[in-house]
Amino acid sequence: MAYRETEKMRQRKAEARQRIIDCTYECVADGGFRSARITRIADLAGVATGTIYRHFESREDLFAGVFRLATQREVDKVAEALGTDGDAAMRLEKALRQFARRALRGPVMAWSLIAEPVDPKVEEERLKYRKAYASLFETAIREGIKEGCIPDQDARQSSTCLVGAISESLVGPLSPSQVEETTENTTDNNDPLVDAIIRFCMQGLTGTRR
Amino acid sequence: MAYRETEKMRQRKAEARQRIIDCTYECVADGGFRSARITRIADLAGVATGTIYRHFESREDLFAGVFRLATQREVDKVAEALGTDGDAAMRLEKALRQFARRALRGPVMAWSLIAEPVDPKVEEERLKYRKAYASLFETAIREGIKEGCIPDQDARQSSTCLVGAISESLVGPLSPSQVEETTENTTDNNDPLVDAIIRFCMQGLTGTRR
Repeated sequence: MAYRETEKMRQRKAEARQRIIDCTYECVADGGFRSARITRIADLAGVATGTIYRHFESREDLFAGVFRLATQREVDKVAEALGTDGDAAMRLEKALRQFARRALRGPVMAWSLIAEPVDPKVEEERLKYRKAYASLFETAIREGIKEGCIPDQDARQSSTCLVGAISESLVGPLSPSQVEETTENTTDNNDPLVDAIIRFCMQGLTGTRR
Repeated sequence: MAYRETEKMRQRKAEARQRIIDCTYECVADGGFRSARITRIADLAGVATGTIYRHFESREDLFAGVFRLATQREVDKVAEALGTDGDAAMRLEKALRQFARRALRGPVMAWSLIAEPVDPKVEEERLKYRKAYASLFETAIREGIKEGCIPDQDARQSSTCLVGAISESLVGPLSPSQVEETTENTTDNNDPLVDAIIRFCMQGLTGTRR
């Protein structure tokens, strides 16, 4: 009898794939990409390591998939904040603030997405997503220039400045060593940090002291 | 007779090591880390590939060394610009402008240093050097606050915003595909681009429209 994939088999395969992704996500959120070993993921997902390689060409391939999934969530959140009411400067500030706050609330995952040294394949995804953020900001800056709440400027250039400023300034506070320190010594009040980042970004955009 | 390394042998070894580094540097400046294959480096340096591995543990190890060398040069240039005459805001502007201009004049090397997806070992060097830049900027910002030419702010946070804004905004213009386009279609007048980046950075710092 010829091999034929039944609907049930397809479904079971899809479920296994999803479980592998979910468990990898969990590992990354817990200790970064470097801690996400295939044997550990297989254990968590309740599959053989060989099964993982039937679903993904390589470890890097699986990681790239998880990276896309996790980053798309953040991109969607930024898009959502930019889509609310208010003038463009207000919406940009809201989006930047939310991005920083969300990162500081899930520091390990955020560090992995923003700065953890990763395989070139994952790094390529990172470059793509940075463009996705920049493109959202660029649209909002153009709207702001039209509305008159943001002075005329090279919107594309400024959008990349925003992406760089906010992600770079989060790298330190998010880095694993720093996070432990913070948890030990202080409360989780990151407002002054977020305020400093947002001030720089909004001043950069508007040239107005805040 | 026991093996004893003579002065001449030591010198020859040191020269070979230096030649390997120089040739790798040349390869990277020409086509990025990904184009720097060990066989090509060995060819250029006139050594066997095995010789390279006697001097460096691995390809990544050699790359990390070249990365350090190339980046240290840029860090020194920034330090030099920050050490000239003028108030801190002027010196910061000068340092940022020079950094951007130098990057745009050697775009392949700059892209490799700033953004090329690289092995985690090299990426770790990148994170260290970003801290070195930030630390130089931080000192200058503190001086500016003391002098009164820069408003009071979280100098450390702003320094990382500067590093992020300038490097991220150069990533696009430096990326290999973009560089070809630029060479084909336009002159090498990057002043408007550099001006836009510097304006954002200085406005971010000072909150004064420029």
